[in-house]
Amino acid sequence: MRFDEAYSGNVFIKSHPNYEESEAVIYGMPMDWTVSYRPGSRFGPARIREVSIGLEEYSAYLDRELDEVKYYDAGDIPLPFGNPQRSIDMIEEYIDQLLADDKYPLGMGGEHLVSWPVMKAMYKKYPDLAIIHMDAHTDLRDEYEGEPLSHSTPIKKIADLIGPKNVYSFGIRSGMKEEFQWAKEVGMHISKFDVLEPLKEVLPTLAGRPVYITIDIDVLDPAHAPGTGTVDAGGITSKELLASIHEIAKSDIRVVGSDLVEVAPIYDNSEQTANTASKILREMILGWVQKKG
Amino acid sequence: MRFDEAYSGNVFIKSHPNYEESEAVIYGMPMDWTVSYRPGSRFGPARIREVSIGLEEYSAYLDRELDEVKYYDAGDIPLPFGNPQRSIDMIEEYIDQLLADDKYPLGMGGEHLVSWPVMKAMYKKYPDLAIIHMDAHTDLRDEYEGEPLSHSTPIKKIADLIGPKNVYSFGIRSGMKEEFQWAKEVGMHISKFDVLEPLKEVLPTLAGRPVYITIDIDVLDPAHAPGTGTVDAGGITSKELLASIHEIAKSDIRVVGSDLVEVAPIYDNSEQTANTASKILREMILGWVQKKG
Amino acid sequence: MRFDEAYSGNVFIKSHPNYEESEAVIYGMPMDWTVSYRPGSRFGPARIREVSIGLEEYSAYLDRELDEVKYYDAGDIPLPFGNPQRSIDMIEEYIDQLLADDKYPLGMGGEHLVSWPVMKAMYKKYPDLAIIHMDAHTDLRDEYEGEPLSHSTPIKKIADLIGPKNVYSFGIRSGMKEEFQWAKEVGMHISKFDVLEPLKEVLPTLAGRPVYITIDIDVLDPAHAPGTGTVDAGGITSKELLASIHEIAKSDIRVVGSDLVEVAPIYDNSEQTANTASKILREMILGWVQKKG
Amino acid sequence: MRFDEAYSGNVFIKSHPNYEESEAVIYGMPMDWTVSYRPGSRFGPARIREVSIGLEEYSAYLDRELDEVKYYDAGDIPLPFGNPQRSIDMIEEYIDQLLADDKYPLGMGGEHLVSWPVMKAMYKKYPDLAIIHMDAHTDLRDEYEGEPLSHSTPIKKIADLIGPKNVYSFGIRSGMKEEFQWAKEVGMHISKFDVLEPLKEVLPTLAGRPVYITIDIDVLDPAHAPGTGTVDAGGITSKELLASIHEIAKSDIRVVGSDLVEVAPIYDNSEQTANTASKILREMILGWVQKKG
Amino acid sequence: MRFDEAYSGNVFIKSHPNYEESEAVIYGMPMDWTVSYRPGSRFGPARIREVSIGLEEYSAYLDRELDEVKYYDAGDIPLPFGNPQRSIDMIEEYIDQLLADDKYPLGMGGEHLVSWPVMKAMYKKYPDLAIIHMDAHTDLRDEYEGEPLSHSTPIKKIADLIGPKNVYSFGIRSGMKEEFQWAKEVGMHISKFDVLEPLKEVLPTLAGRPVYITIDIDVLDPAHAPGTGTVDAGGITSKELLASIHEIAKSDIRVVGSDLVEVAPIYDNSEQTANTASKILREMILGWVQKKG
Amino acid sequence: MRFDEAYSGNVFIKSHPNYEESEAVIYGMPMDWTVSYRPGSRFGPARIREVSIGLEEYSAYLDRELDEVKYYDAGDIPLPFGNPQRSIDMIEEYIDQLLADDKYPLGMGGEHLVSWPVMKAMYKKYPDLAIIHMDAHTDLRDEYEGEPLSHSTPIKKIADLIGPKNVYSFGIRSGMKEEFQWAKEVGMHISKFDVLEPLKEVLPTLAGRPVYITIDIDVLDPAHAPGTGTVDAGGITSKELLASIHEIAKSDIRVVGSDLVEVAPIYDNSEQTANTASKILREMILGWVQKKG
Repeated sequence: MRFDEAYSGNVFIKSHPNYEESEAVIYGMPMDWTVSYRPGSRFGPARIREVSIGLEEYSAYLDRELDEVKYYDAGDIPLPFGNPQRSIDMIEEYIDQLLADDKYPLGMGGEHLVSWPVMKAMYKKYPDLAIIHMDAHTDLRDEYEGEPLSHSTPIKKIADLIGPKNVYSFGIRSGMKEEFQWAKEVGMHISKFDVLEPLKEVLPTLAGRPVYITIDIDVLDPAHAPGTGTVDAGGITSKELLASIHEIAKSDIRVVGSDLVEVAPIYDNSEQTANTASKILREMILGWVQKKG
Repeated sequence: MRFDEAYSGNVFIKSHPNYEESEAVIYGMPMDWTVSYRPGSRFGPARIREVSIGLEEYSAYLDRELDEVKYYDAGDIPLPFGNPQRSIDMIEEYIDQLLADDKYPLGMGGEHLVSWPVMKAMYKKYPDLAIIHMDAHTDLRDEYEGEPLSHSTPIKKIADLIGPKNVYSFGIRSGMKEEFQWAKEVGMHISKFDVLEPLKEVLPTLAGRPVYITIDIDVLDPAHAPGTGTVDAGGITSKELLASIHEIAKSDIRVVGSDLVEVAPIYDNSEQTANTASKILREMILGWVQKKG
Repeated sequence: MRFDEAYSGNVFIKSHPNYEESEAVIYGMPMDWTVSYRPGSRFGPARIREVSIGLEEYSAYLDRELDEVKYYDAGDIPLPFGNPQRSIDMIEEYIDQLLADDKYPLGMGGEHLVSWPVMKAMYKKYPDLAIIHMDAHTDLRDEYEGEPLSHSTPIKKIADLIGPKNVYSFGIRSGMKEEFQWAKEVGMHISKFDVLEPLKEVLPTLAGRPVYITIDIDVLDPAHAPGTGTVDAGGITSKELLASIHEIAKSDIRVVGSDLVEVAPIYDNSEQTANTASKILREMILGWVQKKG
Repeated sequence: MRFDEAYSGNVFIKSHPNYEESEAVIYGMPMDWTVSYRPGSRFGPARIREVSIGLEEYSAYLDRELDEVKYYDAGDIPLPFGNPQRSIDMIEEYIDQLLADDKYPLGMGGEHLVSWPVMKAMYKKYPDLAIIHMDAHTDLRDEYEGEPLSHSTPIKKIADLIGPKNVYSFGIRSGMKEEFQWAKEVGMHISKFDVLEPLKEVLPTLAGRPVYITIDIDVLDPAHAPGTGTVDAGGITSKELLASIHEIAKSDIRVVGSDLVEVAPIYDNSEQTANTASKILREMILGWVQKKG
Repeated sequence: MRFDEAYSGNVFIKSHPNYEESEAVIYGMPMDWTVSYRPGSRFGPARIREVSIGLEEYSAYLDRELDEVKYYDAGDIPLPFGNPQRSIDMIEEYIDQLLADDKYPLGMGGEHLVSWPVMKAMYKKYPDLAIIHMDAHTDLRDEYEGEPLSHSTPIKKIADLIGPKNVYSFGIRSGMKEEFQWAKEVGMHISKFDVLEPLKEVLPTLAGRPVYITIDIDVLDPAHAPGTGTVDAGGITSKELLASIHEIAKSDIRVVGSDLVEVAPIYDNSEQTANTASKILREMILGWVQKKG
Repeated sequence: MRFDEAYSGNVFIKSHPNYEESEAVIYGMPMDWTVSYRPGSRFGPARIREVSIGLEEYSAYLDRELDEVKYYDAGDIPLPFGNPQRSIDMIEEYIDQLLADDKYPLGMGGEHLVSWPVMKAMYKKYPDLAIIHMDAHTDLRDEYEGEPLSHSTPIKKIADLIGPKNVYSFGIRSGMKEEFQWAKEVGMHISKFDVLEPLKEVLPTLAGRPVYITIDIDVLDPAHAPGTGTVDAGGITSKELLASIHEIAKSDIRVVGSDLVEVAPIYDNSEQTANTASKILREMILGWVQKKG
């Protein structure tokens, strides 16, 4: 179950060497070929792993250590360059397998389109699935300049599949007028600009339900995540994002999987974005993996 | 046979092709020869246009689309390198023409000295003009090391011309002691450190008056705008700046022109500063242009 | 009221405003979705145009000025992100049109796969077409990890179409063993490591023939072109590349079209790669366009 | 007392030319050889001095000018590369001399280990010394991979020397579980995540006591200080750090010395970190030097 | 024999998974604590491995493929930060083991001091050892500012041990007058400025002898290797360095081990230095490993 | 005679502390306000000094040490930002003083216009002055977009003053057609593309004459000097430039002064350009200062 060393064979800090014994599986989805603006997120997973060596193994927020969770780092799925359809199929197939093995999927993008096949696979296992989506962008397009497979479409696709009322977006500050209107009409939840406060209201309504959580790193203000394809001013701080993760950790929802996407290292010489992403991953591991229920 | 400007728009996104039919005119003032520290803002306007292709055309803040306003992008005024006096004269002459044609001037710097001839031209048309000025620096010097034409002097010049009581500065956190003292003595308004809250108090007092608004990008904290000549810690967030723009949009003042200056792309490899500037420009267009009265 | 494009030319310097009257047409092919390593060449054409403002209009090598050639800059072909097949089709269709209008095609990549549809279209018009190819890499793969549309395949595709004996590669220093063996077996010309000297031998044998010339910027040593997807040490200098262009200019071959690909600006903060590319383009214009015969 | 110009002989803006007449002494400690992650803080002091030229001499926060305090810039202590023990000894010896001459020590790191010999020397002079420590990290390790001299240990060393109840840490968000537990058991003060509010509670309890203050620049969020060895998301803003400095300035404690460490310029092309550090130093000078009592 | 994943657990492309079966062993020596100028070479080995994924497995120079040699990548030796003596001891001990197991040592620095313990260990096994040294710098100091363990001393140490007449330096363009004088007096070979031509003269004189070859990447001109601690103009091209490696490959000397040091990735955003280093390593593997005799 | 510490008060390595006793004087001319493309050379002198710490004091080329020449570093002339005329006047006045004191002027730019007042002052002292000029650009314009004071004009100005037959340009590869034509008509020497070989021919014809030498760093290929305002492919290597300096050193001309201009550090993160410049300066000092005659 360990992929070929597509870009870099390193692993996230403290990964468990054994797939079978692990509760969760980390995997990279190094795809960036449908992005409409700046590519480069294919190198996100490798860089996040590389800088994870600088992380403390203990979370002062959750008072837990990485030793308390077993997670396997499977490497990057060897997605075929320039072929979105085959990439998506490979991802879905892989998640199907993870879920059959009862693993918690913990994905790293890659562009946001990679979340679509993951969520699709999740829905096959969890028919009452809800989605929590943190992002600067609605990602509710049907297509982008004629292409239905685009990084601007994953949330629309999952909303169409599981019903828009089961999708909860937070931190949104950009999109087309039509996207916001559609969301309103069909009753999909969109919290504009903020994450933590609206999340506090939504979480109790999802108590007991299986929830998949997808985070686009650009929900953070560019000050906190310059290394991403489409930076968009007016975002939240990393402090608010960390607090949101912890709020979920102490809620009553069941977190059945999650991902973090759109880290593009080349646009950030200081590597703060990759470092922040690796810290977010640590908090996901410590706060969410064992809430699968 | 001319393709759409897919990546390199020489013009700001969605600019109207026709000057005569436009309500507003965007123009660059690529001058940086009097700056005392790091030059490079001459490339600000071109880079802001270039990255504007990444903007959504819809503002989720104002619920408006760029199609609702007609603005023409006139390109950069061909200022003569190293000649501040002739540059200033060219700018003033150009703004005179815009005002004669009843256009809303929407300028991009360049260093802050470029705002001086613009404000001077505005005052000829609007004798009861007030200035709203957002900046880290007072810009109230009479001269800099002997030079009366300096990026440290534009606010002093306009205050001398229209009367210091008609000038309102916000977000100021740096300047000489003498500048603050002078402002205090002559009754010029300076709000230190913050923008949004003091602005809320000032706006009602300006109801109905024609106001020109000049924003130095360094009013933002360096975290939000590293790509500028003189970074200065302790500034406001891009969230606060956007909220301030929206506060003005819903106020009762008449906004008769505005500019955004001091974006220097070379100091920001992530291009977050230019991207943020292009978003600010979009909000100015949607929120201010049709408030000319 | 439209100013001269002082800094941000959306067009290559001195482009002619009129398509019909032009001898040559410049166009960008902003595609980078099949690259196996570092993406970013989609921004190559825009940046090359932007920095062309810094070029002298006169070539001290050829003693000619840009005014002596009429070329139109058509902008970037709006290729659909992540869809190689449709992108290739759009390019071929566009080149068909250019050739029908008897224009000299002068393309800017983008990844090297974009040259494939161009060469295909050229061959329809010139059945005795030969190809001169300058590159660090053979680009003779049949597919890359299962994908027949890949930046590693364009030279193989054209060799299959027009016959490998009509393809002449120079400066090659990387490839698979099988690629070199295939070339040897089928009689395709490959000059390893150097360009100028072997070119001097080949050119007389091509006298009078229509030749399309494709240059991958990575034929240059990384010292001379760090801003490209796959840097490869041991390349030629920009001096040798310029001399090779001039050698062709004074030869007896007919140059019927050309391109320059794989400039990826993000990997080169100094922008030397884009500047060098714009100078190469100038020399192509002055030295080659009127050799169409 | 002027050191050899180890990396750069420039001085902090407005430094007094004469050691004897000065109240405070600025000195660099360009050591980074024990860091476990990214080195480069050896160049911090030189770069902070270099960019200090961009500072205003007046603080709009404290309403004071640099002319009101006399401080001498002694340059960088010529620490022997790769020899932590000798480096530490040299620093201690130097501080002993400064204290004998009744100077206020104002140090610039270098890695955080440099604060250890300074604090040790302070304790010899002030037996009732307390430490205020602002940092992202606990720095309470006994050793790092077998090395007792490490940038992860200075606070543990001083706590062992002066008693952990005399050490007050603020802004801490990373460390080993054992470090937090030890602090709790021995009664050392640790405020997690925040600085300003907990500081307001602690300061009155230290009234009249001599306090040495050590600030690791990484107490700031990476958005505000990307140029440091170990960036760690979730930190405070530069606004909060400035406010904390001012809170101390108006408190009743005696500030007997201070330092600012871990600025590593190479990771921050925008130079915002060095600029912010130079502003922090200015506020330390204006707010703290004359509080020595 | 696989080290802990000190910075990154990735491996050089096509490494053999099994130590016992391998002819050669690649290992990193991530030490940079004695450098007198810019640190950062500790990250060299990890980055060289990371970018090796972009290499072709075939050498068009040597007409060989990586499959023809078995080499194991042992990762980075976990050297203790800031402790040169213990680091050196660990390296020597490790090389002793490699030689006892009859492996070809292929090291990656780190600073140049790491070559000292390697050469020392080699000499224990090969009493008639000669050294070929390619570098911009003499590295013949006895100590640096009092420290005998310094990156400026390794060649002096080995010359003292094995006799200066057995040391051959090439490409040297910087050093102290005393170093050049000493070399001359004791009969050590120094070829200034060039590598290939003088090497051609020296190689026949070493026929049949066991030779260890140490290459400091700064023997290359900064144009070809900007990512190193001490750049020094006037160096050789990567073309000349490759040719020198190939000259050795076809000579009659026995190459018993080699290293490549001083790659410091942070100073080279284009990553050309790490890419060039990985290509050099490939040529070392293909050209030298099986010449051990 | 020590200027205010305009940007950075550091000095070039091994500078003599005393003006009176010195044979040569180093001074910075931090002006970049007339450049038509990328500004930033105002920071050249400070950065060259800063990195000079990394230089060896001994030249392996000339077999001389810096101790053998006495030179004083006067710092940067405090030129008024944005005022070319006053800047030029200040420079001329300063050089007049240096020459009156019989010092060898060794200037650092700044843009190339700064060489004009220096050469003018030289001519007043040496009526039979000749100029050696190494540059990528002719710099023979009469004005630039209407401005007679421009970085494109200094060689024209000096040619007009001392007669074009006394001006010798080398390495030129860019300029307007008119500039080359004018040079040809009036008998000014221009060697295109190369420096060393044509210099060997020219030097004997200048034997015994006083010569001022001005080097624009962009005579180097961008590979060797990316950190400059206008990069231009096809230049010489740093090896050739060093050899040219040494060729002059051993010739029979009298070198009465020299400068090195157009280093703009911000465009070169690796700092190779500033490092190369500092090495060039060292060779100028060792090879030329005592040839004043």
